[in-house]
Amino acid sequence: MTYCLAIKVRDGMVFASDSRTNAGLDDYRSHTKMFTYSIGDRCIVILTSGNLSTSQSVFHMIENDLKSPKDGVNLNTCTDLEEMASYLGKLALENSTVSDEQIQGNVNFSSFFILGGQIKNQEQKIFLIYPEGNYIECSDNSPYFQIGETKYGKPILDRVIDTDTSLGDAARAAIVSLDSTMRSDLTVGPPIDFVVYKKNQINLDVKDRFKFDSPYFVNISEIWHEKLIASFKDLPSFEWEEN
Amino acid sequence: MTYCLAIKVRDGMVFASDSRTNAGLDDYRSHTKMFTYSIGDRCIVILTSGNLSTSQSVFHMIENDLKSPKDGVNLNTCTDLEEMASYLGKLALENSTVSDEQIQGNVNFSSFFILGGQIKNQEQKIFLIYPEGNYIECSDNSPYFQIGETKYGKPILDRVIDTDTSLGDAARAAIVSLDSTMRSDLTVGPPIDFVVYKKNQINLDVKDRFKFDSPYFVNISEIWHEKLIASFKDLPSFEWEEN
Repeated sequence: MTYCLAIKVRDGMVFASDSRTNAGLDDYRSHTKMFTYSIGDRCIVILTSGNLSTSQSVFHMIENDLKSPKDGVNLNTCTDLEEMASYLGKLALENSTVSDEQIQGNVNFSSFFILGGQIKNQEQKIFLIYPEGNYIECSDNSPYFQIGETKYGKPILDRVIDTDTSLGDAARAAIVSLDSTMRSDLTVGPPIDFVVYKKNQINLDVKDRFKFDSPYFVNISEIWHEKLIASFKDLPSFEWEEN
Repeated sequence: MTYCLAIKVRDGMVFASDSRTNAGLDDYRSHTKMFTYSIGDRCIVILTSGNLSTSQSVFHMIENDLKSPKDGVNLNTCTDLEEMASYLGKLALENSTVSDEQIQGNVNFSSFFILGGQIKNQEQKIFLIYPEGNYIECSDNSPYFQIGETKYGKPILDRVIDTDTSLGDAARAAIVSLDSTMRSDLTVGPPIDFVVYKKNQINLDVKDRFKFDSPYFVNISEIWHEKLIASFKDLPSFEWEEN
């Protein structure tokens, strides 16, 4: 499995993805699920979950198209982020559609994608792209998207994130959400690829890769655990408890 | 969907279940998923998730068997909790097995069960019973079982629960786990049926039903939310943050 997360708040965006892939617990590896692209007037981050082969094919085609666009379209030629989402959706559908003769057994070739970024003088946007190629946009009402193993890490987001959340809090929430997921689910694992994209700063300078032993990650993970336990110990007693 | 939870610690056991059932978001109802039985030397709690029709048939057969045991077996005649788990497994399998002619479309008739309790002068035990009729027992290494929509509420259990946890903390963790799940998932909803079964006290006196507006539930839910947000606000800043 996979866990990827993108948050959009007023001051910027946060992208995070784990890097564990597996075909059963006896066959797991580490692959990045984040693709970043930064040139000229635009910076783009793409996250993916689902069939790794499909996802990698899509990333490969994006790179090929940047060298020589097949249909005259690539991440550079798109005039806005909607056009990029549509382009990515087309690649996702093409690569997950396998002819009946090719299918061996009950394999799911689908991949989901999150695409977010900003083109100079335009707004920051995030899209969730379905395997069928259609997509939806992040809004003030839904300021984050998750793909993959989404449930363990959702409660903290629902408590903390809205569009007025500071960029720092959004970034901390992303790390806590990943940390909670990794504690409960072996199919999500480090390193975590992590990007903070400040509004109107057309660069991806705040980019990091956290392992289990990265100092900031260890620090935030331990402090959060201690504070959570302390908070829990302060909850009111039941009448039936002896004291 | 459903969320049921049973925890076994040194001083006793906690059982909790939501009561929302649905066949789509436009057709949801409230049904208890907890069956309690308390007579003579034994108290038993059963929780269920999955196909409501199968679960209700099983509960009905348990009650019928108590009046006139079909094969000479009921919750009273069983000499230990393993025998009860085996009896319940048999009922679960019988009721979920539908002949090919009866199946209309792709309906899943399976139900899962959690059975826990204590017979006087025996140990407290909890079993998870699969639709196939087999079962596993709660142990010191795995002091809780969940069925249904398990993921949202698992992180807090993984942080708090071990076999040395006090019964009060186990009960609070169960409520927090249900609360987190209900905030993130519309298919899990109140009222919450709730039983605390103290070790060697062969009664289910501590039994409650929490709605969204029950004072203790509101209290613990609000305090937990406030403390969580306060803890979150205390997490260390990133280097790139302005102060």
